[in-house]
Parts: sequence; C-alpha cells; structure tokens
Amino acid sequence: MTPTTPLDPTALPLEQKAALLSGQDFWSTPPVEAAGLPSVVLTDGPHGVRRQVGDLDQIGLLESVPATCFPPAVAVGSSWDPEVAERIGAAIGVEARAIGVPVVLGPGVNIKRSPLCGRNFEYYSEDPLLAGVLGAAHVRGQQDAGVGASVKHFAANNQETQRMQVSADVDERTLREIYLPAFERVVTEAQPATVMCAYNKVNGVYASQNRWLLTEVLREEWGFAGAVVSDWGAVDDRVAALEAGLDLQMPGDHGAGNALVVDAVRTGRLDEAVVDRSVARVAALAGYVTEPAHAADVAAFDADAHHALARELAAGCAVLLKNDGGALPLAAGQRVAVVGEFARTPRFQGGGSSHVNATRVDDALTALTAAHPGVAFAAGFTLDGSGDVAALRDEAVELARDADVTVVFAGLAESDESEGFDRTHLDLPAAQVQLIRAVAAVAPRTVVVLSSGSVVSLEGWHDDVDAVLAGFLLGQAGGSALADLLTGAADPSGRLAETIPLRLQDTPSWLNFPGEQGHVRYGEGVMVGYRHHVTTGTPVRYPFGHGLSYTTFETSDLQVTATGADSAEVAVTVTNTGGRTGRHVVQVYVATSAGPVRRPARELRAFGKVSLAPGESRTVTFALDRRAFAYWDVRESGWVVAPGEHTVQVGRSAADVVAEASLTLAGDEIVPELTLQSSVAEWFEHPVAGPQLLEGFLATMPEGAAEMHAGMLQMIGSMPMRRFAADFGAAIPTDELERLMAAARAAR
Amino acid sequence: MTPTTPLDPTALPLEQKAALLSGQDFWSTPPVEAAGLPSVVLTDGPHGVRRQVGDLDQIGLLESVPATCFPPAVAVGSSWDPEVAERIGAAIGVEARAIGVPVVLGPGVNIKRSPLCGRNFEYYSEDPLLAGVLGAAHVRGQQDAGVGASVKHFAANNQETQRMQVSADVDERTLREIYLPAFERVVTEAQPATVMCAYNKVNGVYASQNRWLLTEVLREEWGFAGAVVSDWGAVDDRVAALEAGLDLQMPGDHGAGNALVVDAVRTGRLDEAVVDRSVARVAALAGYVTEPAHAADVAAFDADAHHALARELAAGCAVLLKNDGGALPLAAGQRVAVVGEFARTPRFQGGGSSHVNATRVDDALTALTAAHPGVAFAAGFTLDGSGDVAALRDEAVELARDADVTVVFAGLAESDESEGFDRTHLDLPAAQVQLIRAVAAVAPRTVVVLSSGSVVSLEGWHDDVDAVLAGFLLGQAGGSALADLLTGAADPSGRLAETIPLRLQDTPSWLNFPGEQGHVRYGEGVMVGYRHHVTTGTPVRYPFGHGLSYTTFETSDLQVTATGADSAEVAVTVTNTGGRTGRHVVQVYVATSAGPVRRPARELRAFGKVSLAPGESRTVTFALDRRAFAYWDVRESGWVVAPGEHTVQVGRSAADVVAEASLTLAGDEIVPELTLQSSVAEWFEHPVAGPQLLEGFLATMPEGAAEMHAGMLQMIGSMPMRRFAADFGAAIPTDELERLMAAARAAR
Repeated sequence: MTPTTPLDPTALPLEQKAALLSGQDFWSTPPVEAAGLPSVVLTDGPHGVRRQVGDLDQIGLLESVPATCFPPAVAVGSSWDPEVAERIGAAIGVEARAIGVPVVLGPGVNIKRSPLCGRNFEYYSEDPLLAGVLGAAHVRGQQDAGVGASVKHFAANNQETQRMQVSADVDERTLREIYLPAFERVVTEAQPATVMCAYNKVNGVYASQNRWLLTEVLREEWGFAGAVVSDWGAVDDRVAALEAGLDLQMPGDHGAGNALVVDAVRTGRLDEAVVDRSVARVAALAGYVTEPAHAADVAAFDADAHHALARELAAGCAVLLKNDGGALPLAAGQRVAVVGEFARTPRFQGGGSSHVNATRVDDALTALTAAHPGVAFAAGFTLDGSGDVAALRDEAVELARDADVTVVFAGLAESDESEGFDRTHLDLPAAQVQLIRAVAAVAPRTVVVLSSGSVVSLEGWHDDVDAVLAGFLLGQAGGSALADLLTGAADPSGRLAETIPLRLQDTPSWLNFPGEQGHVRYGEGVMVGYRHHVTTGTPVRYPFGHGLSYTTFETSDLQVTATGADSAEVAVTVTNTGGRTGRHVVQVYVATSAGPVRRPARELRAFGKVSLAPGESRTVTFALDRRAFAYWDVRESGWVVAPGEHTVQVGRSAADVVAEASLTLAGDEIVPELTLQSSVAEWFEHPVAGPQLLEGFLATMPEGAAEMHAGMLQMIGSMPMRRFAADFGAAIPTDELERLMAAARAAR
Repeated sequence: MTPTTPLDPTALPLEQKAALLSGQDFWSTPPVEAAGLPSVVLTDGPHGVRRQVGDLDQIGLLESVPATCFPPAVAVGSSWDPEVAERIGAAIGVEARAIGVPVVLGPGVNIKRSPLCGRNFEYYSEDPLLAGVLGAAHVRGQQDAGVGASVKHFAANNQETQRMQVSADVDERTLREIYLPAFERVVTEAQPATVMCAYNKVNGVYASQNRWLLTEVLREEWGFAGAVVSDWGAVDDRVAALEAGLDLQMPGDHGAGNALVVDAVRTGRLDEAVVDRSVARVAALAGYVTEPAHAADVAAFDADAHHALARELAAGCAVLLKNDGGALPLAAGQRVAVVGEFARTPRFQGGGSSHVNATRVDDALTALTAAHPGVAFAAGFTLDGSGDVAALRDEAVELARDADVTVVFAGLAESDESEGFDRTHLDLPAAQVQLIRAVAAVAPRTVVVLSSGSVVSLEGWHDDVDAVLAGFLLGQAGGSALADLLTGAADPSGRLAETIPLRLQDTPSWLNFPGEQGHVRYGEGVMVGYRHHVTTGTPVRYPFGHGLSYTTFETSDLQVTATGADSAEVAVTVTNTGGRTGRHVVQVYVATSAGPVRRPARELRAFGKVSLAPGESRTVTFALDRRAFAYWDVRESGWVVAPGEHTVQVGRSAADVVAEASLTLAGDEIVPELTLQSSVAEWFEHPVAGPQLLEGFLATMPEGAAEMHAGMLQMIGSMPMRRFAADFGAAIPTDELERLMAAARAAR
C-alpha cells in the first residue's frame, strides 16, 4: 500500500524511528518516504556555508562548495553590533538555500574563558550578554531566510584540549551567570531550529548525556522546542543520551547506535515515548528543506553582492586600539610602505570545521595600492618561518626608512591556532616582533595591523609604534575592509569583545587551563575576563570594550530611574565631538555589592551602537530588566535581586567609567527556609523565627545572657540549630523549633 | 561482685560503651570503674594549658588555671625550628601533668589558605612541609612528656566564617598535596594520641562523618591507631560519625547521642563492632592519666624556668623584615623613644579557645628600659581607638623628634582577630598607620615592631621606616624577647612562614574566600601562598622564607646527587660572613615541569636551621625522598614521580634562589590503564598497545593514512576509543581492542 498522505513519523516501525535519530552519513539525516520526510543536510557554519563535496560518508574537512566567507565570530563580537550578526546570518541563509542546505550549524556562543582556546575565533566574547545578543541576531537573520540554525556548543565547551573527554567542573552559579546566559538568550529570543550539544562533560557528565542541561534547563526552563543535535562524535552512550534529551546523533554510525535504541525499547529499558519525542523533533527539521539538495551552484546567489556586504560588515568589526598623533587614517600624499606577508596573503578565517571555501579573497596590499598609489611592499617574514629572516627584515627596514608611514601586517598563521588544539602562549612569532621593532626604530610613523583569531600579546613592541589596528579575522573581504579603515574610507567602530592582558599569567583561568587528568576546574568562578580584572584591579594592556574612532564622543546627562522593585530605565546622551561621522558603542554596566554572593566589580548589562554625524547628539535609552540586577542564588535555585544599592555605570570600556548613577532597589524579599541544619545565626537573624526565638531563648538563659549573646554568635553562629538545641544545653524544645520552621515556611 | 581486675571495656554493657564515646561534660570522658577507666580530661592548647576552673558543664572560654603562655603557632612557624616546637610541646606536657591534664588539644596544622583566616595565629604556615615538621615536633615533645596530643583540625578547616557548616570544595590532588600532608606527617612520624576532626564539611560531607578522611586516609593509609575526637560540637549525626571513624564526641550532650547509638545497634543499623572499636580507642586514652585531676596548682611546675624558656624560644621566632642602614640593633648610648601602647600592654596570644591564663606577662617597655636606660615612652594610640588620637600622636612625634631612634610598637588588638571570625582586610588601624608615618617623618631613625596573629599590610608606611621587626604573637615573654632582639642580646633568626602580599587582592584565595551560600571553592588548587606568587610572578612585599639577621650568610657548593630513581641527596655549604653568631635557615625547594599536572614553580622540600659563629662554615645535607619529587596522580590514585628533569634550588626565600642544580630522575614508569573510554590519543600513545594498534590500524586505512594520522589526532585525539572504533568507521574489531587492553593491564 502506497500512502497517499505521509504517515505521522512517530507511527513508523521502531527500527525506522531509531534510524531517523542518527545521520545516514556524515552530513544528513535519512529520508523517510513513508512519512514524507526528505533527508536533511546539516553543514558547518557559522561564518559561511561549508557544504562538503564528494563522499559524504567521510570525516569532514575536505573540499567544499564555494561560499562567501563572512567575518568569523571573533570579528562580529568586536562589532558590538547585532545588525552585523543578523545580516551575516541572513546572507548565509540565502547562500545555504541556494546551495541546498536546510540547516547551517552556528552560531557558537561559548564564552572565551581563556585567550588560549583554539576555537575562540568561532566565539564572540568573554561576556555572555554580548555573545548572547549577537548569537540571537545571527539566528534571527539566518532563520528568517528560511535556514535552520544550531546554537553551539552547549555547554561549557571552552577549550580544545581533551575536548571529547574533559569534565568542565563548574559550579551552578557560574554556569548560570557566565556559561549559560548566551545560550539562554539565543533560545528564548530566537528559537533556533537546533541546539548542538558539546563534546565535553559538565561536572562529570557528558553534555550529550546531561539531562540537567538538555532537558531541565534547556527545555523545561527555557522552553526550547527544537532538536538537540550532537556535536560530531559527541555521543557516548546512545540510549543515555536519548533519555537525557539528545535527539539526533551525528554523524551516523552505520546503524550501531540505532540497534542499541531498538534493543533498549524492546527490553523495556527505554520508554518508546522517548524515541517518539525525538522523532517528532527531528522530523520537524524537514520543514527547512525547500528543494533537492544537489546541483549546488555558487551562481545561485549573488556572490558579488555578498562580497561587498562582507567588506562593509568587516569594516565595522576591526578595533583601533591605539592611534597616537593621528597616525591613522593615512593622509593623501604620504609615502606609505606596507610590510608583512599578511598584507599579500591575508589571514581571514580560522582552521577546522568552520573553514569556508571562499568565493574570492581580497588582500590589503592590492586594495591599499588601488586607494593609495605608490605603496611600496616588503614581505618582512614568511608565514611558515622559512627563508632568510634577517634579509627579509632588512629589506622591510630599508623600505620603512624611506616612507612617511609604514604599515606592518602582523598576526598568526593558521597553523598557530585552530580548532582541535589550544595555544600555549599569546605571543606573535618572534620574527614578527623583531620586524615590528626594527621598523619602528627607523620609520617616522609605524602602524601595526593584526590578524589573528584570538588575542595576541602586544608587549615588547606596543610602546614603539604609533597605531595598532586589530582586525582579528575579517573574512574574505577583510583585506579591502582593512584598506578602507587605513585610508579613512571607513571609520573604525569596533570595540574589544575580549580583554588584551599584559601577561598571560594575569588571565583568571591561567592556573586552571586546560586542566589535567580529565578535569578542568573553573576555579575563577564568575570572575571571567574583565570581571576578574576590574574586580582584582589587575592592570591590562587594553580592557574589554576599548576601541577608538577617527572622531571623538562625549557622554552626558546620565539618568537612571527605577521602574519597579527590580528594574530601571537608563537614558544617556552621546555627542560626536569630532570632525567626521562615526559610530559609538554605549556600554552600560551595573555594579553592586548587595546580596550574599561575591559580585564582579561591574558587569555589562546593556549596550548599543549609535551612528552620529559631527556635532550630533542623541539620547539613548535602555531598559534594564530584573536580570540586569540579579545573581543566581543556589539556595533559592533562582535569580534573585538583592535589596540595596546598585550603580549603573556608562563606560568607554570595562575599565573606564565616564558616568554613573546609583539607585536603591527594593529587590526580592527572601524569607529563607529554616531547617534544623540551618545555622544558629540563620535562626536568630530570620525575619520570622528570629525575634520569637530570641525572646523565648534569652528568657530561659541565666543572667548576663544578653551580653553573652553576641560573643556566642561569633563563636558558634554557624552551628546547625539541631546541634545547638541538643548538644550545647540550649534547651530549646523540638516542638518549639518545629513551630518556628512552619512559621518560616508559611512566610515564604 | 567487685571485679578484682578491670573488665575489657568492650565487654561492658552497650549503654556504658556508648556513654564512654562522649564527654560527661565539656572537658572530660566519663570514668568507668568496672573497667578501671578513669575520667580523661582534654583541654585546649596548643601554646599552653587551658584548664578551665569551676563548672565543667559549661561552654568554655571562662577562667582557667594559670599556665605558661608559650609563643603561639604563628610565631613557632616563623622559627622554622622543630626544636622550638618540641621544647614547647615538652614544657606544655610538664605543665599539663602538673595541672592534671592527660590530653592537651594541639597542635593545629591547618594551612593558611588566606591571611584573613581568624585562627591563623593557631596555625604554623602556608606550607605543608613546614607545618608538618613543626607539628610533629610539638607532638613528640608533648607526648614524650607523657601527655597526649591532638592534631587538629582535620581537615581543610581554613576559615572561621560559617565554619560549622561550610563545605570546603577541594579536589583530591589539592587535598593530598596541600591540606593533608601536615596531618600525614604528624600522624606517621609522631603518632599523636588523638586527631581532632574539623567543624566544616569537606566536599559536602562533614569532616566528623567523612569516612574517606577518618578511616580510608587516616587509618588505612596513614596507620593512625589513636582516637578521633570531634571538635567541640562538630558531630552532626552521631551514628554516621561513628561509622565514618569518629570515636569520641565532645562535648557531651547529656546522653542524647549515646541513646541514638544504643538504638542503632539494637535495631541493627549499626554494627556493635563499630562501637567496640571506638571504645577500645577511647579507653586507651586513659593511659595518659597519671594522677587525680584536681588540686591543680601552678606551683607544681617551675613557672620561672618556663617563663625563661618562653623568652628564649620567642626570640627565635620574630622575623626581621627590613633593617636599612643597620638601624637595629640599638646601639649603646642612643637616645631611644618607644612609641605605641603595645610596648606597655603587649599583645601576645590570640582570642578564643586557645586563650591561656598566663603566669605572668612581660612588656617590652619595661624590658627595654632595663636594658637601655633612659628610654622615653608615649602611648601614641589606644587599643580600643578611644581618646584624643591627634593629641596622642603629637606627643609621640615630639618624643621621636628628640630621639636618635624611635621604636613604634604597632599591631592588631585582640578584637581585630580571633577564633570565630575572619578578618576582611589586612590593614593596621588607621591611627597606627598615621602614627608611624608621622613619627617617621621626624625621627632620625624609625623602627616598627609588629604584633599580630596574622599578616598585616605594610603598605602606606613601609618605605618610610628603617627597620621592621615582625613579632607576630610571641607568648607571655614576648615583651622581653622583643627587647632582647632590639638591643641585640639575641639575633633575629625567624623567617616568614607566610607571604606578606602587596595587596589582599594578590592572595590566591581572595576571590574565593570565605565562599558563599554554604560552599567555599578552593579554586586556586595547589597554588596556595608562595606557590601562587612564584608561579604567576606576582610581586609581594616580602616572600615566604624571608628574614634578616644581624649577621650575614653565604651559600656555596651545592651538590645534588640522585640516590635512586626517585630520590636525591643535597649537600650545601653555609658560611657566616658577618661579625656575630647567628642562625641561618637553609631552604631547599624543588622545581619541575615534568609530568601531566601543573606544578608550582617551586615547592619547599627540606629545611634546616644552622647556628654559625662568625666565619664558620658548615656543610648541611638533606635527603630528598620520593615525596619531595612526587605529585598526587588522581588517575593512579597515588604519588607519582614523573620521569624527567627536577631542579633543586636553595633559596633565601621562595622568591630568591641563590643556588640550583638539576638532576634527571628515572621516576615512575606508568603504564596507563586502557579502557574503551580512554582517548584515541591515549591508545595510540600507549607504550604497549600503541605500536600494535598503529600497525594494525594504519594497515587497514586507505592510502595517505599516515599523513592523515597527525591531523586526525589533533581533531579527534581526545575521542574515547569506543566512539572512534564504532562511529567513525575506524573498523577496529572489538576483540582486538580487548586483547590490547589485556596486554596493557598485564604490563601495569
């Protein structure tokens, strides 16, 4: 019998259902004709479509269909501009549809816990708000274009070392405040088609089998309705993973895992309803399939238009770190020397699964030469360190001596950083540092342009040069975008999404990265990135949020108004006080020491990028909701706003507050639970039980009891009431304690 | 029937046995006449006997019998001299016997994780070797005098905040390398009569109920044969505690807990053998009882001789931190001004349960006046901050102006630090800082003498003064001992047992101290104290191990010789190059980066204090055993010496290495266990399985496999073999893997 209408996929035979829950090959789900389900292709993202060509039943990283390589996440993070992320997502959606890919795997919103992480170029920021806002925008753009997204890698995947085994040992407050919020925002604001679970364990349990993560937090708390797909090869115990909330195992394992699922159902170890639940979620992905997935052709999208878009967006990502004496932009008529192989052979994306086969590649040397005739060039070094290093350097120095300005293109080669391994230091190759210093010693003006997927140290040469432009990785049009910024055709508006430290040792995870013997201790807790540096007062080279423009901005008239017990509205005026149009990023931080937990000195709680003409002023407003003031309370298992003073700070960076205003929030009235394990101090200080207890208890004590009380609380205030009431002769009857516990409970 | 010979106590009725396992009051066990067991009194130590007078059924800290107050542990730690600890222990033993106390509770060997801990004055050091050597010496001295000791507080009791509830969340390597070794050394070298369990939880389980701590580690691994006694009020679940290995609950709870024990045995929940085991251990404490415990009389020991001993030993504890221009010792004929209330009202011990009712108290002013006629005095400040601060300061400044040298006695009052709470900052009271600065501004020479139970910050005034002598707390003869050091009657030979940081924020536990919401994360792991500072290169005011003398020493001829695969002998020559007899502390550190775990930049592995006449040289030798080179390997569950280079460093301090020599150790040949959860890299790199696997596996792979191998290992090297063999089409048969696992096992 041929069905005329597709079957409900959950009504299929068990074997077929199990089969639908793993790849038929490396990159696609099996089609189920009876249920009218086409195969769903999932390809790597997130800054371009990487549709592999040829044998799909192979481990990846082979040749792929040409697609636009947009700025990777490291650059998008520096844009502080959700519009950049959204337009990239939208363009990727267009290309994916053209190439026949219904689901593109991205964005990656993991937090940059350490600058050493080899995959940092795929992630946005060390700050969860920034990562979450950009990630949600990317998903919105891509899914509005009809292509499913996959926010990844869920969760606490913050290193490459031992990534398939290591347990990220991290306490719940830190997870809730640092490592989960970007995922939470993407899920709740943008409803991605899929969430990709991480390779690593979280507190000893593989993310792929972590019910707390995949079901309790992701679905029950955040309301995620899509499919959880495994990172490629992340499933260890297929049945446990299904039960925990994973839906789709990728890649396929030739049916081995499916057989385990079938067996588990047949023997009663696995409820078939679990399988049905996942089948429904995976089947829903077919909704993204719009045409047969072959005959993909780069001509099916407007490659020129997308290249131009990549150039425009890239220019909004680079960060001008330093610009002494107006070294930049280059002035017409200046004799310009360009030094560094990266000017000719650009580094514009990272290595690993996200590697895009770019439709074309702009190099800065060609673009600069076109904009600024007469540019001289010397390679200065080779990418693989080969050649006569001294001769290359000497040639560059000679060039620099005769120029008005020398622009050195330095950075990391693809072999220095990649998915799959972590760096062990932050240094540029020694030959490049020597080159920069040698050039700076003779050049009237020296500008350094950096290309790298993650932070590199500026020490040893920073003070010798006049300007530093950090491009990170800018995608295939990065070369022309850099030329636009150097010549002033574009104004730099990027801001650091990650701290540039003075020393690797100053980064908070340094002693605990990448862990050892199967475990990585997140010992720094919530004090990640700038949170650590501003809290401990550790000096850095450039703080999170820092970035210059060719124009200048001023901030004034900060107004902060409470809009409830746990929310506020912020209004602040920004003025372009310089001579050209530019974009300013308004950064709103909140600082408080209220509540029972150690708070970072300040935390980013809102931001916005504003374009202003010279002399123009604009008042920007932000609504700070409950979460902007809350911490995660492990005792209450929830977000709590502590009553008390909170200071709203507007900063040029996390280290440079230019305006602040305080407000007192009523916050949450917590009536703590009381048990016999609660401490004596908790009992005596309890808003309900305390006064009654104190009155009753003190009345039974000998003379001088009131004076003894303070000293006693100091010595044994942390004693559990059970012990105090029983052991220390306090003579508090059990039924009285029970009455008080009930009263406390009733008041909660 | 009256027994003619005492019964075996384990043959007593269950109720009586249970009763023997808790105090009959606050300070003693019940006597059991049938078994010939007297009551055993346990009193607080550890730097003097604190036998409470009056009602024994009361929470303590009341009046006690006079006894000599010896230098507390904070000072003994700074002596770096086990002889000091042993002589104090011996003298306490003599006094305890005289007063009728068979067990004195001490020493405390907890690690100073943070300088803020309120009870640091009762602990020796931030280094476990130093704490362990001194603790063992104290126990040896006390027990050789016939009085039982109690090493405490076992374990990870490193703060006072929430001490009866907080869970010290600390990984096993850190426990094994930092928080347990001092206990281990005391137990294995000195066999204390008792071990006192801590109040806190360790990884979520009360120390009093922690079977891993009290039985597996303490008894099974270390061979402890004595009784485990609870810290006062530390038992939460009496039956669980007994089962975990606790023997004696203190204080008594009027039989409530005993009834629970009886009931648990009667209902079959508790094996009576557990009770018998503890009864035997507690009964054994009666062996320390030598006479009826009353009519205690201070005259029963030679109080004068002990006071003199206290003075002699105290002089070996103080640390001369700074002595510019030979400001000290005071020269005959100098006009000396003494400033500071502490000169007249000495601070010499800490607050809380260890508080001794001293037989007499020396103050430095009297002692200095006797040694150096014509000393002028001004109080400068009051201990409680009352009075006209400016007037007191002005008076002192006037005195200083007219003197050749002014000695300012500054420090912390007892209310600033105590058992029961932690400090929140390291500062001296502001009035004292102002006083020091004001004096230093006018005095030709300024010497600061510090009295405090823990480190205080020297910032804000250190550079203004000529000399700083850190006395910490020196016991009842501290005043005269300080006078001996100031006048040069004694030579300073103390060395810092804890780092003096520049900023509190630089201390490694700062962000994780004292924890929150019931947990304190030991996020810094093994990087405690100087281990952190030297590893991260964080500058400090004075490093661990620092201390000056009135003479000078040189180190030469370091010889390091391997004495086996995992041990070495160190010989080094020390010469007194100055003009007077003095004592030098030879500090031997080991540095290595061998092995799979992050090692501190150096760790103290041996030390010795040498007395040398002017011009005298001595060659000192140290045997470095296996543990001096080992780390705790959590995978092997044991101490492992990593094969490779180890550097032996002799330092004037942890930050000042004056000689070093490297040796290569064969170390331990670890053949790792292989399971299907071991990673692909672990399999391929395994000494037994790797070569076979590689040969077999590569042979089955398509052409180009060898080249693919390196790249593959980078991307999926951490994948568990089970997944690799099954999911990624690697086609390694299960029986072949099983054969290789067996081969690996056989080679272990």
